[in-house]
Amino acid sequence: MKSLLVVAHGSRRQASNHEVRELVVQLRALDHRYDRIECAFLELAEPSIPDGLRGLIESGSSEVVLMPYFLAAGRHVVADIPDEIEIVRKEHPAVTIHVAPYLGAAPGIADMLLSQADSIRG
Amino acid sequence: MKSLLVVAHGSRRQASNHEVRELVVQLRALDHRYDRIECAFLELAEPSIPDGLRGLIESGSSEVVLMPYFLAAGRHVVADIPDEIEIVRKEHPAVTIHVAPYLGAAPGIADMLLSQADSIRG
Repeated sequence: MKSLLVVAHGSRRQASNHEVRELVVQLRALDHRYDRIECAFLELAEPSIPDGLRGLIESGSSEVVLMPYFLAAGRHVVADIPDEIEIVRKEHPAVTIHVAPYLGAAPGIADMLLSQADSIRG
Repeated sequence: MKSLLVVAHGSRRQASNHEVRELVVQLRALDHRYDRIECAFLELAEPSIPDGLRGLIESGSSEVVLMPYFLAAGRHVVADIPDEIEIVRKEHPAVTIHVAPYLGAAPGIADMLLSQADSIRG
């Protein structure tokens, strides 16, 4: 069983965390190859990254693709998220946890940004 | 004269700030309708948002589209960025500063995320 875990920063603003949960609902409705799709948060919201991974593993996932929902490879992407994953890798050495490139590394992000800026017709 | 200012969070990690500057280089190479494209940072990197806006205005921009390079409408997008813009609006009331929707609100972000996750072939 293979799952996708979308990892966002988390916010004190609940509407912002809700957006991430809504994104997961959108993802589930797309054509995808995962048995489960969930989200987790680095800080300020629940579940944490370890708890998100544990939830997927406890429901039978033997393979998880973790997708950092971040735009730049700052400290969170480079150090904090890997540290959190390591906790669960030690607990569940038989489970494969892949880390996808963070979203900002996606080809096409520049085009998307320009389209979004151009939605303002000044 | 119309300009685009891409506003990112900023990081203690210089490579992360460099990524944003590289994105601006990519944007300039695309087919676009701006006289200038620059970036600015909410914190931890230079220029600040007010300084980024002032630079564009001093070089002749009468209209600026500010694009929040953020994935969710957290406190930074909802409060901190508008507060920084307000400083410059007061200094330059004749300049029009449009704020584009933050990148995470772009249609197609879910598809992009799924493609990026699928680049991991487990």
